[in-house]
Amino acid sequence: MAYDTNNIFAKILRGEAPSFKVYEDDKTYVMMDIMPQTVGHTLVLTKEPAINLFDLSDDAAQACVITAKKIAPAIMKVTNADGIVLSQFNGAAAGQTVDHVHFHLVPRYKGENVHEHAHVKGDMEAIKALAGKIVAAIEALN
Amino acid sequence: MAYDTNNIFAKILRGEAPSFKVYEDDKTYVMMDIMPQTVGHTLVLTKEPAINLFDLSDDAAQACVITAKKIAPAIMKVTNADGIVLSQFNGAAAGQTVDHVHFHLVPRYKGENVHEHAHVKGDMEAIKALAGKIVAAIEALN
Repeated sequence: MAYDTNNIFAKILRGEAPSFKVYEDDKTYVMMDIMPQTVGHTLVLTKEPAINLFDLSDDAAQACVITAKKIAPAIMKVTNADGIVLSQFNGAAAGQTVDHVHFHLVPRYKGENVHEHAHVKGDMEAIKALAGKIVAAIEALN
Repeated sequence: MAYDTNNIFAKILRGEAPSFKVYEDDKTYVMMDIMPQTVGHTLVLTKEPAINLFDLSDDAAQACVITAKKIAPAIMKVTNADGIVLSQFNGAAAGQTVDHVHFHLVPRYKGENVHEHAHVKGDMEAIKALAGKIVAAIEALN
């Protein structure tokens, strides 16, 4: 399967589609998931045109995990979550819905279940507000 | 919470507890999960005494993702899985059961569900045989 340069994440990276961005550097782009599994569900995108872990460069993979490490404490601080899951899906059978490498950061709350992945659109105003708080927390923590 | 040097993964890394090892380098150790969520469930352990992503060094985090990238194709080849999930849990609320940083590689098969995490012990002989095949596939692919 060839990389589709018109997948939604490629469009977001080119500024052709909107997103609630919370962080960006030369190799990664971080935004809120608009169909959050829990409050604070955030996505770390590589800027490399790679479908999955198998065609991602080592350098790009390292950049994703470093960005995840940088962002996760800010998400925890803002959401007061009890834990956080880092995950990355390869292939439709593994739950991958956009064929551009991205890592999920899904805060977890004691006693609360997660919503099904990529299923129900969240409250856009609430997500926008949360994005602003996470941006501020990233700046405060780094 | 301080790192417990007697957690089961620390013991395995010191050779004080058994495991089905499939790969090792200076910064990571890879073994089969003996309570697999699916056939081929594998764990990438950091060798750093770190509880979670928040106290793991950047260098150790990078090593884990590079090892995951190296091992995942071998798991896919041996299991004929349709996809694979990379995940890492931080905190009991996020499903973390051993307080030593580890990344899960969970193969996924079309139409098959995953078992509950850390719940049912697998068939030890089958896991041992699979480990041997993955070791061979890692050598063949790298």
